[in-house]
Amino acid sequence: MTESGENRRVVVVRRPQGLPVSDDFALQPAPVPGPGVAADVLYISIDPYLRGRLSGRHVTGPIAPGAAMDSELVVRTREDSAVGPAGTLARGFGPWQERVAVPEQALTRLPDGLEPESLAIGVVGMPGLTAYAGVHRILHPAAGETVVVSAAAGPVGATAGQLCKAAGARAVGIAGSAQKRAWLVEEAGFDACIDRRGSVRAGLDATCPNGVDMYFDNVGGSVLQAVMERLAPNARVALCGLMDQYNDDEPPPGPNPALVIRARATLRGLVVYDHEDLRADMERDLGARVRRGTLAFREEVFEGIERAPLAFCRLMAGETFGKTVVRLR
Amino acid sequence: MTESGENRRVVVVRRPQGLPVSDDFALQPAPVPGPGVAADVLYISIDPYLRGRLSGRHVTGPIAPGAAMDSELVVRTREDSAVGPAGTLARGFGPWQERVAVPEQALTRLPDGLEPESLAIGVVGMPGLTAYAGVHRILHPAAGETVVVSAAAGPVGATAGQLCKAAGARAVGIAGSAQKRAWLVEEAGFDACIDRRGSVRAGLDATCPNGVDMYFDNVGGSVLQAVMERLAPNARVALCGLMDQYNDDEPPPGPNPALVIRARATLRGLVVYDHEDLRADMERDLGARVRRGTLAFREEVFEGIERAPLAFCRLMAGETFGKTVVRLR
Repeated sequence: MTESGENRRVVVVRRPQGLPVSDDFALQPAPVPGPGVAADVLYISIDPYLRGRLSGRHVTGPIAPGAAMDSELVVRTREDSAVGPAGTLARGFGPWQERVAVPEQALTRLPDGLEPESLAIGVVGMPGLTAYAGVHRILHPAAGETVVVSAAAGPVGATAGQLCKAAGARAVGIAGSAQKRAWLVEEAGFDACIDRRGSVRAGLDATCPNGVDMYFDNVGGSVLQAVMERLAPNARVALCGLMDQYNDDEPPPGPNPALVIRARATLRGLVVYDHEDLRADMERDLGARVRRGTLAFREEVFEGIERAPLAFCRLMAGETFGKTVVRLR
Repeated sequence: MTESGENRRVVVVRRPQGLPVSDDFALQPAPVPGPGVAADVLYISIDPYLRGRLSGRHVTGPIAPGAAMDSELVVRTREDSAVGPAGTLARGFGPWQERVAVPEQALTRLPDGLEPESLAIGVVGMPGLTAYAGVHRILHPAAGETVVVSAAAGPVGATAGQLCKAAGARAVGIAGSAQKRAWLVEEAGFDACIDRRGSVRAGLDATCPNGVDMYFDNVGGSVLQAVMERLAPNARVALCGLMDQYNDDEPPPGPNPALVIRARATLRGLVVYDHEDLRADMERDLGARVRRGTLAFREEVFEGIERAPLAFCRLMAGETFGKTVVRLR
């Protein structure tokens, strides 16, 4: 809200071509929120899958020019509702807008004691659930195995690698900046981290001499190809994200199936919405790790709704570090 | 053996370029068999994976120019051994040669009453085990689901489709000749069969209006791509064979991983040697189906060791129908 009390939102003004730019979006006055629980937005979640929605290519449906951007939010209710009295913190889904009205059944009260509250859309939220489901339902890490994680400094990748480490595996990250790589090894406990902008093949050969038992893929493209060439027998691959192609108009081809056969590998597509049944377990497990200080995480916080387009553009350029959020108040 | 008692074998004289031709092979006098159980060869198994071995690209190792071709055999022993008295029928592995000597521990007595004996290297042998493992360990068919099978008239494909049918699924084959397609529908009980030389995409759209729940892939290439575009939610894909690329020098790219993610599909590489623990179950199950006449199968029999190269070339050109074997006596 501006000081005058005006409500503002971010709309898409045109379909991005390739990497999104700030001019693909506009800040507009928002209508008075309609029916639903009135709430002030505290945080907007900025996520790579939104790029797929802008291209009309995502399972959760398109966002067409003229429409408001929408994603997960952390809100504080302004009236009593099923989630609690006015002032209750909740997670919901809605437009990139300062004040919203969310259907009561679409609000979920935040777990008590979650600090910062943005964790509810970060490593104790959807990204955490994505990592948790991928690790426990697809990768099944065993002690001594090696997991490779791409986009490893993001909230999904960093959490997935740490969960595999906790199960006794070795974790090798792939990340695009020296700062991220240092953090992954020094703070998040990864055993090694490969420079995504260097030779990923050489990096894998050096860090995974016995091949790759598990791969948590957040990028697709040439990194997926390089890892698939090095799968160990009975490898498991969680196909989760496609950062390398979200900005492309036409999907490129993928790895040859001979690589799957040779390794007797199992590849499985991971869509977090299929795994809501794990959310309570995830919140308990990852929430406890955060409180104990045994789960490292990073957030990149942009202040003010007017910076939401910039946050998204930076994310899609690989220039953010950790979970990207916009803080509104 | 020639009438003079000479022993003969087939050797590779040069690495095939693209489709193999008969001149890539030569019939040569074979040495007197060395240590091992002396046996006469009744049948030689002719299989697509041998093409990969000729390119040096198969998990079971290469066959280099100068070496004898080798594969599964049905033999009749000429002396007493652990598998039984002289004259016992056994399955083994050895050169394409009229008389062989096989290490005792590498011989397995044929199941009693198997008729014809070539079934021990056909639908009650390795191809049957491949189908059985793929269906029971990867596809997990459920009633009402749709399975698509490529190279469907081969012993692996036809058996896999019929096993899925027996579990209540619909089976759609893909095959390259009108004769094969008619047999699959009329004799093997497939619900439909698509012309591989026509538009596979249009054929899939017509026969799988609700998408493909299971795919048993024996070919890779453009057929795999077309099926992957049509996977139903939670689809399972058994990646088993690569007939489309065995003749190529460089493996082509494969389908984009977005197709796996969108369908939340599970792809798994199938190598039959990993599933020997299922062989007894497979022999009991498929043997009983053959005896009851509820498992349709075809064999293409070439007579005489001198026709073994032709049999292999015809197989690799897609011109054989059913399990390809060479009968020596």
